[in-house]
Amino acid sequence: MNEKPLNKQKIIKIIENKISNDMSYKNGRIISSMCTYPDTFGVELFSKYIDKNIGDSKLFPGVVEIEKEVIKMIGSFLNNRNCTGSIVTGGTEANLIALWAFRELSGKTRIMLPETSHCSLFKIANILKLNVDIARVDSNRKLIPQEIKKLIKDDTFCIVAMAGSTGLGVIDPIREISEICLDKNIFLHIDAAFGGFVIPFLKKLGYDLPDFDFSVPGVSSITVDPHKMGLAPIPAGGILFRDEHLRNKIKWRVDYLSGGITEQTTFVGSRSGGSVIAVWGLMKKLGMEGYKKIIKECMNNTHYLVERLDEIENVSTVMSPVINIIGIKSDLLDIKSIAKGLRKRGWAVSLFPEHIRIVVTPSVTREVINYFIQDLKEESECIQAKI
Amino acid sequence: MNEKPLNKQKIIKIIENKISNDMSYKNGRIISSMCTYPDTFGVELFSKYIDKNIGDSKLFPGVVEIEKEVIKMIGSFLNNRNCTGSIVTGGTEANLIALWAFRELSGKTRIMLPETSHCSLFKIANILKLNVDIARVDSNRKLIPQEIKKLIKDDTFCIVAMAGSTGLGVIDPIREISEICLDKNIFLHIDAAFGGFVIPFLKKLGYDLPDFDFSVPGVSSITVDPHKMGLAPIPAGGILFRDEHLRNKIKWRVDYLSGGITEQTTFVGSRSGGSVIAVWGLMKKLGMEGYKKIIKECMNNTHYLVERLDEIENVSTVMSPVINIIGIKSDLLDIKSIAKGLRKRGWAVSLFPEHIRIVVTPSVTREVINYFIQDLKEESECIQAKI
Repeated sequence: MNEKPLNKQKIIKIIENKISNDMSYKNGRIISSMCTYPDTFGVELFSKYIDKNIGDSKLFPGVVEIEKEVIKMIGSFLNNRNCTGSIVTGGTEANLIALWAFRELSGKTRIMLPETSHCSLFKIANILKLNVDIARVDSNRKLIPQEIKKLIKDDTFCIVAMAGSTGLGVIDPIREISEICLDKNIFLHIDAAFGGFVIPFLKKLGYDLPDFDFSVPGVSSITVDPHKMGLAPIPAGGILFRDEHLRNKIKWRVDYLSGGITEQTTFVGSRSGGSVIAVWGLMKKLGMEGYKKIIKECMNNTHYLVERLDEIENVSTVMSPVINIIGIKSDLLDIKSIAKGLRKRGWAVSLFPEHIRIVVTPSVTREVINYFIQDLKEESECIQAKI
Repeated sequence: MNEKPLNKQKIIKIIENKISNDMSYKNGRIISSMCTYPDTFGVELFSKYIDKNIGDSKLFPGVVEIEKEVIKMIGSFLNNRNCTGSIVTGGTEANLIALWAFRELSGKTRIMLPETSHCSLFKIANILKLNVDIARVDSNRKLIPQEIKKLIKDDTFCIVAMAGSTGLGVIDPIREISEICLDKNIFLHIDAAFGGFVIPFLKKLGYDLPDFDFSVPGVSSITVDPHKMGLAPIPAGGILFRDEHLRNKIKWRVDYLSGGITEQTTFVGSRSGGSVIAVWGLMKKLGMEGYKKIIKECMNNTHYLVERLDEIENVSTVMSPVINIIGIKSDLLDIKSIAKGLRKRGWAVSLFPEHIRIVVTPSVTREVINYFIQDLKEESECIQAKI
């Protein structure tokens, strides 16, 4: 470390120089990410209240009240205003909290994950020392209830289903899985880290999408991240439980805190109150109307991108997009080569085994899509010419 | 959730109203917390770069370089510029990463924790399904090497020692414990979440404190949190490993990210680049000189508070403070009643079974101490009068 203090302006200059080649969520060039450029009001609130530490909750009863409200606000569009939960660091912590809570409640050690799960769920299973059965998906990339039934073992305590899968934004048949879970007395956790701030608004806009939330009786908990399509700054994940008792076994009593005896319900201890206030304020600022407007625009752009793909030979969509996620595949061309070419042209694209994923966030405007289509066309022609 | 968008100014007014009774780290009334009011330059940088997501690291190579540098900067005052590590969400994630890494490397399931451990270590042991042996401390609240030796079992893979214990800021006899760990081939993790940004500067100021860092050969990893005495905003924890191979088993390959195949070394996935840049910039701004100055002032105020305690009958320090943490006890009066009284008088104090903990952070100025001593005096007299 430098012995002498450095000048602030000099420091910022060095930083700017170091990150000058980094990408940005702002200009749409990151066309494949579930994270977004955060709303400026959320950033303003985060910065303004950055000194609050809701980990020592009794010092900040106002922030605690705001967290309770924001959980109910999210619960209100997930069909359970009486849910409990926390604003956490992201989807990984949210998923850990759910699986940890259910492992402790059940005393069992086996879960079932869809093959379309986010990789963090496998990481969490490793951390929690859980045995994992992987459930296959059908040609529509959805879990198959009959297959799930067969896979359940005596020590299975939880099934995870996706509402907006990582690769293609698919929603699993959660009503049918719920029936199985209720019948077998197994917890059902929904990973809607991305879809939680998308599907409810699309439904209100008239999209015919399957139920995935607390309206389905067997759903025990939902991961829903404000720092994805909620447009809040990182870190802001969310974990919601149907009922308080579901997290009883992971409440960690901390005796010594400055605010007095506290029961922490998150994995982390010290925790940003700025995150909590930013999510609350941002949701108030946008309201249902604001989110609907944003998602509508994203879906319109999704449909626009799908249409424009028709112009390009030898590439097509994996399936008709369910939400604002598109899979681009090619039966003739090597998808890896296309991704490589697009990256060279300055596009940050997600590569899955058989497709490129596009996530149409608010930064992915029509203008961005037009440039992208142009580059994709040139790139695929270029690769085709080499065959 | 509200249907219609709300006005920003109105939202801020509601927030201000809700949190009007919350406490603040700024005025010193939170006189017992390891967290501090963050330095304004750190906040400025965090806010400026809040849109960076180092979880998708290949999109942000500049931020990755900054993280590598900041880990080396911290490593430089922990006597290992070649260490590796990450800026994480806090001490809990840092401790989890270390114990998870060592569990996976060793294939064993038992750890030893000092009875003075931070409670999060027990939480982590629960999550990781580890068996825990609790090592007693001596009358100076330090681990007893001979006792540790006796407690080691065949499946013990890690011993945790404290460098700045939660209750009293004590530094365990880490050189002696290191010998045992090297002899038995056991990992040694140091929880210096608080002490890591204190002890090195005190040593440079001439304080005679025991070695606790990578200069001790058996030390495998250190938790050291910039968001405590490093004065960075939350979230900013730190985990440092002596050597890259120590975290080999917990590198989680994520294939699909927009930046391309990535190996994540943290528990969380999406992760604030703002945190990383804030810590880097803040450390550059303060330099060794700046931190030494801050810690010197804190220690001077610590000694001042200890001196002033002499004026009060029936209260005393548990021990001569090692770092800027003081334990206040009373042989005659009920310490719980004193804490209760102080809280009523507007002081947020940490209560341990036999003492009140004071943490002399930069907000705890002489003026604050003078007010505190006045209140403590009145309160203890008041309680004594009731006996």
